[in-house]
Parts: sequence; C-alpha cells; structure tokens
Amino acid sequence: MSSGSAGLTVRSERRVFEGTQGFYEHDSAACAGPMRFGVFMPKSKVRVPALYFLAGLECSEETFAIKAGAQRIAQELGVAIVTSDTSPRQARFPGDDTSWDFGQGAGYYVDATEAPWSSAYRMETYVTQELRTLVEQQFSVRDDVRGLFGHSMGGHGALSLALRHPALFRSVSAFAPIAAPSKAPWGQKAFTRFFGAAQAHWMEHDTVELLKTRQFATKPLVDQGSGDKFLTEQLRPALLGDAVTLRMHEGYDHGYFFVQTFVEDHLRHHARVLST
Amino acid sequence: MSSGSAGLTVRSERRVFEGTQGFYEHDSAACAGPMRFGVFMPKSKVRVPALYFLAGLECSEETFAIKAGAQRIAQELGVAIVTSDTSPRQARFPGDDTSWDFGQGAGYYVDATEAPWSSAYRMETYVTQELRTLVEQQFSVRDDVRGLFGHSMGGHGALSLALRHPALFRSVSAFAPIAAPSKAPWGQKAFTRFFGAAQAHWMEHDTVELLKTRQFATKPLVDQGSGDKFLTEQLRPALLGDAVTLRMHEGYDHGYFFVQTFVEDHLRHHARVLST
Repeated sequence: MSSGSAGLTVRSERRVFEGTQGFYEHDSAACAGPMRFGVFMPKSKVRVPALYFLAGLECSEETFAIKAGAQRIAQELGVAIVTSDTSPRQARFPGDDTSWDFGQGAGYYVDATEAPWSSAYRMETYVTQELRTLVEQQFSVRDDVRGLFGHSMGGHGALSLALRHPALFRSVSAFAPIAAPSKAPWGQKAFTRFFGAAQAHWMEHDTVELLKTRQFATKPLVDQGSGDKFLTEQLRPALLGDAVTLRMHEGYDHGYFFVQTFVEDHLRHHARVLST
Repeated sequence: MSSGSAGLTVRSERRVFEGTQGFYEHDSAACAGPMRFGVFMPKSKVRVPALYFLAGLECSEETFAIKAGAQRIAQELGVAIVTSDTSPRQARFPGDDTSWDFGQGAGYYVDATEAPWSSAYRMETYVTQELRTLVEQQFSVRDDVRGLFGHSMGGHGALSLALRHPALFRSVSAFAPIAAPSKAPWGQKAFTRFFGAAQAHWMEHDTVELLKTRQFATKPLVDQGSGDKFLTEQLRPALLGDAVTLRMHEGYDHGYFFVQTFVEDHLRHHARVLST
C-alpha cells in the first residue's frame, strides 16, 4: 500500500513470510462510518489476484489474519488476502452491542432494509462494491479476477454473495457455512431484524434458496467438521447438495484450529480456479 | 491425555492437523497455586519427543498455540509441543498485576529468592521439574530427550535454562531472546524484585554471563528481526557471539507474524538434533 493514500489510515503493517500483513481503516459510505480491514500482500513483481475472506460471528478483520496461518501459502501461490470486518462497529442503534449473534460483529453480509439498520448495516454493498473498489485502487491486485471465501456466518456470506454477484467472484469456498440462514436460529434472528418478518426477501440471501434459480460460476469447496456443535441446527451444509464439493472431517470442531488445518486446500483451490 | 487423570483438569481439547491441541490446568506445588499449560500431541503410534515453548511478556500458554501455526509442522515431524504459562496468575502480592513487564505474565522463568515472590514465582522449578514430570507421566512423550525454545522473555528462559540444565534439554532455539537480562531494563526491573539489588545472583540467570563458564549441549538456532523495536536496548542477541547460530531477518518485527514465518525452521532444527 502507498502510505498516505487519501482516506486510508494504516493501523499497522508487518512483514510475514516475505509479504506484508496490514490493517487499515477508512470512512465507509456504505456503512456510514469507519470500517477496518486487513490485507496480506505477498512479495510479488506483478499484480496478484485477491481472495476476500469473510469471518464469522464475533470475529473481526484480524481473526483470520492472526489465527489461520494462511500467509505462508498465499506468499507461495502469489495471492493477496483481504479480510473484511463483520459489521459496522459504532454503537448507535438500540441493541447493536447487546447480542453476540446480532449487530456489532454480526452483520451477515447483507444490506438491511429495515430501520434503523438500513442506514449503516450494508455489508453486501460494502464488501462487493466499496471495499473491493478501494482495494483494487490502493493495492497491487488484479481487477479482473477475485476469489471469495469465509467461515460460518462468513461462509454464508461467501456462498450467497457469490451467487448474487457471479461476475465478480470466480472462485468460492467456505468453512462450516450457515447454508440456509432462513432455516437456522442465527439467521432467523438476524433476518427478522434486518429485513422484517416477511420472509420473501430472506430467500434472496439464503444460499439453499438461491440455488433453486442460480448457480455458482465454479463449484465451491466446502469443509465441515463432524464435531462442530453448530452442525445440525445452525449450519446444515448437506442442504447444499451437489452444488458444492462438501468434505466432512471427523472430529474437527467449529474453530480456527479446524480452519487452519484445511486453509491450504482452500487457497490452492482458489489459485487453481483463478489461473484457468 | 487420559481424561480424568488425577489433578489435571482438561480445559479444552481440539483436533488440528490430525493431532490434538489441548489446554490444561493443575495445582502447582512450585507456584503454590493453579497453573495452566498447553500440549499439542501429534497423531502418532509411538511416544514422541516434546518441545517446551516459553512465551514472552504478556503472553500465556495459549499465545504460541493459537498464533504460531506450528501444529502443522509438529504433526509432520512427530513432535509434541508443550506451552507453559509465563507466570503464576493469582493476584496475591502488592504489585503483581500492575505492570505489563513484571509479575503476572512476566515470571522470567526464574525461582525468585526475595519475599514475597519467592513463595510462588518459581518458574524455573515449575518448567524444568514439575511441568516436565507431569507431561512425561500424563502424555505419550519420551522421557529421554527434550527440546526447549522460546520468544523474547521466553527466549531468555530457553537459553538460560538450557545452560543451567544441560542434561534435560538437548535441542535449543529462540526467537528474539533477551540475551543479557542483567543489562536490559526489562531484566533489571524483574531481577531487582525477584533476586534483590545484589547482582551476583543475577548473573546465574543471564545467558551472556552464563556462557563465560558453561556451554550449550548443541548450538542453538536464534532468529531476530532487524525491525524489532526492542532489539538494541532490550534484546541484544549479538552478545551471544559464536555460542549460537544467529540469523538476522530484514524488516521483521517482534511479534508473532515474525515467529510464524520462521517457526518451521525451529521445529526442523529440534527434530534434527533430537534424532541424532
């Protein structure tokens, strides 16, 4: 990143595996306030593809960057990794900081339609338009191909946004995604507040529902631990059927020890798809 | 670990890279209270060597296990990694929780001789005797060879304890160690309180001083970032001279992005030494 770029504050930049892991802040129009994100840029003489990672409930732009151990492989493959925060962070609406599974840290990667959320909780526009454009202007990444992946709530985000914006994201993958948020307690709580009780709009952000009329540009890789306590009630990846390559892993749970174990496979999946 | 073992509480056990990352608690005699530690056990049909990792200021038994990305390589090499906490954790003495660089989170891997610290801050005995014995009784690790490594304050711990207990630790390495704590502000603050103002005793826990009369069983690997803000005042690894293999790394700082970049080299160093 060129430091001092207009509107972008460098919070930190550190060397890791020859590349640079940075954390940045900017004023977001979509979210009507400051937003933070991370970028790992590999050491490279050419522009590299960027993979956008969407994190899960209670996580931030730092979680994957610190816990997943992905920079080693990203440097080897020559890909950048952009980590979004999971929501706006200002406390400004009643109830936005009282639940671990709604509001701050839980933006669900949708543009809310219900007040007051609709004025700031616009994570779909943020990730797919504002953050993407900013990164492609400010960092040495390609603007013709991108990957998208995520974990849990961010797995829902990756799969549903890839279906809604197929021209933007060529390669897709997910760890333990919420496959059908309209049928999961987590998703029902969030969608009721963001979209209201009428469920027609919910279906436009539910991967399993979207798959009835849309398809992925390339088949996503989905990894799931069999020991994940959220598997049967909240996640239900088997509902994705043949639309994805689902791999079940005996004994792994929902956390980042699971993610770090399989992250190399995900990065290689993206690099392979993006190179074709 | 065999669950329900006498005196050992399993806080969590999670699968990672086919092995198990566990966190445990037990009542420590050396530290006169509860102590926590972590163990990564690779999937293995035979007993494996254990590498003991000592963390730096403000860190805990979780830091390296979560941030270093070492389990992948430990599984490949067939070694266990034992992570100690950095101090006792009960608040019981005036000032034990008021400084980030002394007391809780900053035990310096020594047995204090001055009251009140001498009754609980006995991290040398804890790591080299109590924790080691417990791990060798409760986990499937070898009791004939061990490795010892650490970061920053824990790099001081690894190097000085290896010199003081050469029969226990065959392989040694360090990331950005405090090479001469008796000459560093961090070490001077801690040693004054743990050992008193008379410096003769300090020298028995200062690696550079110890090297005047002792030597390592095998040459330690030491990595240091050139961009580490603590390099010239607190760390000074060049004082170790030819006693170690010192590698300087341009642009890396003091944190775990630096550690994770070079941790594979450290584990391979230990595995190579322990296999001979």
